[in-house]
Amino acid sequence: MQRLGPWSREAWVALALQLLRPVRAPCSGATLLFRRVQGSLVQPRAREFAEARLKTQLESDKEKSNFVIKTPKGTRDLSPQQMAIREKILNAVISCFKRHGAKGLDTPAFELKEVLTEKYGEDSKLIYDLKDQGGELLALRYDLTVPFARYLAMNKIKKMKRYHIGKVWRRESPSITQGRYREFCQCDFDIAGQFDPMIPDAECLNIMYEILNALQLGDFLIKVNDRRILDGIFAVCGVPDNKFRFICASVDKLGKMSWEDVRQEMVAKIGLAPEVADCIGSYIQQHGGVSLVEQLLQDPKLSQNKQALEGLGDLKLLFEYLTLFGITEKISFDLSLARGLDYYTGVIYEAVLLQTPARQGEEPLGVGSVAAGGRYDGLVGMFDPKGRKVPCVGLSIGVERIFSIVEQKMEATKKIQVTETQVLVATAQKNFLKERMKLIAELWAAGIKAEMLYKKNPSFLTQLHYCEETGIPLVAIIGEQELKDGVIKLRSVASREEVDIKRENIITEIQRRMYKS
Amino acid sequence: MQRLGPWSREAWVALALQLLRPVRAPCSGATLLFRRVQGSLVQPRAREFAEARLKTQLESDKEKSNFVIKTPKGTRDLSPQQMAIREKILNAVISCFKRHGAKGLDTPAFELKEVLTEKYGEDSKLIYDLKDQGGELLALRYDLTVPFARYLAMNKIKKMKRYHIGKVWRRESPSITQGRYREFCQCDFDIAGQFDPMIPDAECLNIMYEILNALQLGDFLIKVNDRRILDGIFAVCGVPDNKFRFICASVDKLGKMSWEDVRQEMVAKIGLAPEVADCIGSYIQQHGGVSLVEQLLQDPKLSQNKQALEGLGDLKLLFEYLTLFGITEKISFDLSLARGLDYYTGVIYEAVLLQTPARQGEEPLGVGSVAAGGRYDGLVGMFDPKGRKVPCVGLSIGVERIFSIVEQKMEATKKIQVTETQVLVATAQKNFLKERMKLIAELWAAGIKAEMLYKKNPSFLTQLHYCEETGIPLVAIIGEQELKDGVIKLRSVASREEVDIKRENIITEIQRRMYKS
Repeated sequence: MQRLGPWSREAWVALALQLLRPVRAPCSGATLLFRRVQGSLVQPRAREFAEARLKTQLESDKEKSNFVIKTPKGTRDLSPQQMAIREKILNAVISCFKRHGAKGLDTPAFELKEVLTEKYGEDSKLIYDLKDQGGELLALRYDLTVPFARYLAMNKIKKMKRYHIGKVWRRESPSITQGRYREFCQCDFDIAGQFDPMIPDAECLNIMYEILNALQLGDFLIKVNDRRILDGIFAVCGVPDNKFRFICASVDKLGKMSWEDVRQEMVAKIGLAPEVADCIGSYIQQHGGVSLVEQLLQDPKLSQNKQALEGLGDLKLLFEYLTLFGITEKISFDLSLARGLDYYTGVIYEAVLLQTPARQGEEPLGVGSVAAGGRYDGLVGMFDPKGRKVPCVGLSIGVERIFSIVEQKMEATKKIQVTETQVLVATAQKNFLKERMKLIAELWAAGIKAEMLYKKNPSFLTQLHYCEETGIPLVAIIGEQELKDGVIKLRSVASREEVDIKRENIITEIQRRMYKS
Repeated sequence: MQRLGPWSREAWVALALQLLRPVRAPCSGATLLFRRVQGSLVQPRAREFAEARLKTQLESDKEKSNFVIKTPKGTRDLSPQQMAIREKILNAVISCFKRHGAKGLDTPAFELKEVLTEKYGEDSKLIYDLKDQGGELLALRYDLTVPFARYLAMNKIKKMKRYHIGKVWRRESPSITQGRYREFCQCDFDIAGQFDPMIPDAECLNIMYEILNALQLGDFLIKVNDRRILDGIFAVCGVPDNKFRFICASVDKLGKMSWEDVRQEMVAKIGLAPEVADCIGSYIQQHGGVSLVEQLLQDPKLSQNKQALEGLGDLKLLFEYLTLFGITEKISFDLSLARGLDYYTGVIYEAVLLQTPARQGEEPLGVGSVAAGGRYDGLVGMFDPKGRKVPCVGLSIGVERIFSIVEQKMEATKKIQVTETQVLVATAQKNFLKERMKLIAELWAAGIKAEMLYKKNPSFLTQLHYCEETGIPLVAIIGEQELKDGVIKLRSVASREEVDIKRENIITEIQRRMYKS
């Protein structure tokens, strides 16, 4: 028995419980193994080995039973505190979308699998599929853009300004510290339709500006580029056609990687000639304002490329409009901006929050994208049987990252008010449940937010404590004396001041006090 | 060739296209078939047969390509019109939940498969499973109650009043006319915690009453019963223990089926003795108010059953509280109410809308449940490793049915206002895009809901027409004369009245007019 010595008490108890399980329960691996260990025929060596396996098995069984009571990997519940913060942020976002005349739209959480295929390039592997339970093959939506395009094509809509707030799902490696989850909320605004160039595009940028301003997250910068300019650069630098996509993906990494590392990837992994990579590098490392657009329009090589010229021309016009909107101080024409998704065809943009630089004179550091979007003129056509195109431009607010930032700020500063209750209906005496119930029903009927404790005879202290804990500002107190005098005692939780209010005036008085605050 | 004569032009074109497809594309059944048909070795009879098959194939190919552009079976997009109606209804529901001090909560769309198993009885087959893509086995949530119980147990929360608005998914046979979908929205309010009997239960009923009153859907009735009373009836009538569940499910059908048919099911299908069924029938066909509770408390058989006595005692107390709330006129103690779900343990309730009876003197007809709920004291304990119970009571508003009812009403009466835009920035002249952009940016910055057409030179009529179409009440017009005079012409769309407003006063004037209306 000495071999079994080092086992923990818990392991023994677990074993005993395993053996005591009723016979009809299927035997777990651990039970079977133990039965085999008990048999004295096993060799000492084999026994040692079996014990080790048994231990592992027990631990994994334990893990399994813990495992049940959790949310799926990469997902989380949102607590009332988190929901209160979310509500505030979403209200700011939605009110901006509505200010620009957008209509609401909702689509199902899942789409036919075919709707989602060939829309996201390499990221398609991150799509959640539903089990084939007979019937259609379905998958959870990956973003709100493809469902919007499907909606337009399906209903033959040629023009629409819509917003959509909803969850999307991606099987990414979750990195919770960065605020990235497998289930997250997207807030999209898009303008579909054939219009004069850059007018809706400029409005999209203005919306990003308005929202980031309103949320007061600190200084930010909106980077702008155009897919056609990038393609033009690749063409004039001599990138073979079939490598455009990979090079574009490489360029996209420039924020996270140094140019040297990106160049290395282009040459060693994608097999670009070093001089081609250097040519790309000479362009994409530039950023600036409208003067950089002008300069590139004069660039001897780039000005020979039709696509690049179109892109640069549109950007020039865009800067004109952004000047009228008065927001150019936050806009940077950044040639390294590439954006991952396949479907963009023109202007692309991304807003980043800036961190105050550690040392003076340094450029402020970007701490990640909080909003992004661009023009996608081909996506709707992919769903139309005749390929009829509906040009679109839009943006998505990265609310999850914004939620995390605001949550951290709130936690550091103050208690978050989770409920909106205005008054607690209370008593200091026994046997006043009925009176409390009558009074609270009157308050509810008048639209006053009121609570009471669900006890027949709660202690007065418990009731006051509940108000302090949850932030209820008023207490309406009823007792023997109040009943006799036909009054309600109204107490302010903050000042502890108490005033007798005539029963028939209580609603007006509470409303007056709530309006005042 | 005469055999090929009756083919349509489309079929020939389709065939030609099939043959012209590049070689690397996989051949469809139709192409292969046609190649075989072309070979002259086929017999006349076989050829005729092959042609018929080819035709079917072409049609099914055509269907397939139409098939792509749809939402999954039993689901639908919500149009801006529908979203506008939803927003109004959900606001009414949420504001009632908040009036009662509920906190918001959100849970992931999917749960570990294990969390959902053994919670829904027979309905478990309607759960949507996710595909096993490596990792955990997941399923879409079937309701919001089980995730709430999982949340309480996981976080060891003993007391909570929360609301949850979210989508749930059920693989039901969709019956779109009844407003039943495979994806639908639930609005739940629940009170968890150990309190004095029937106080939170009474509040749940009051909430149902408040919401149905506020939504003005017409007359309604809230049926109340208790699972313990039903179980008591089954026991005293002599139903064997193992048949309780099936009998309960049979009773649940009494709204849709006559007593004769339900009795038939109990006897023929479940194998109950006819006298046992008749005994059940004598009880469950009764409904009334608190006097029926009193009467059953005196019932010689039922008063001998401990469970039934507990249920009846609680109902008596509940009626007392509902009298204090002043809502008993809408409450009916209905012994036939059974509710489908497994997890209820005490009081259950269901609100139905009443249709005005066709003939005078008849009882009003129920047209389906619009809200329901009950007490479930055992569910949280199922998730707790030590089985610790947290008693819960709650309700769910059947918003989808309510949406359909309100949609039908709205469609019949008036145009639904989808956007909230207050003013269109317009011009009657060419080349005023820049001035429009400057003005609209000022309005947005002041929080005014403003739109402009995304054209350089839209016609004045088109702009006015856009206002009428979308319900925008004001037009801010800028032109050469206005620019010279330093004014903006403000036009009321309804009255066609135009007034010149000094440029610096335009924001105040628009705000004044919006406030007035």
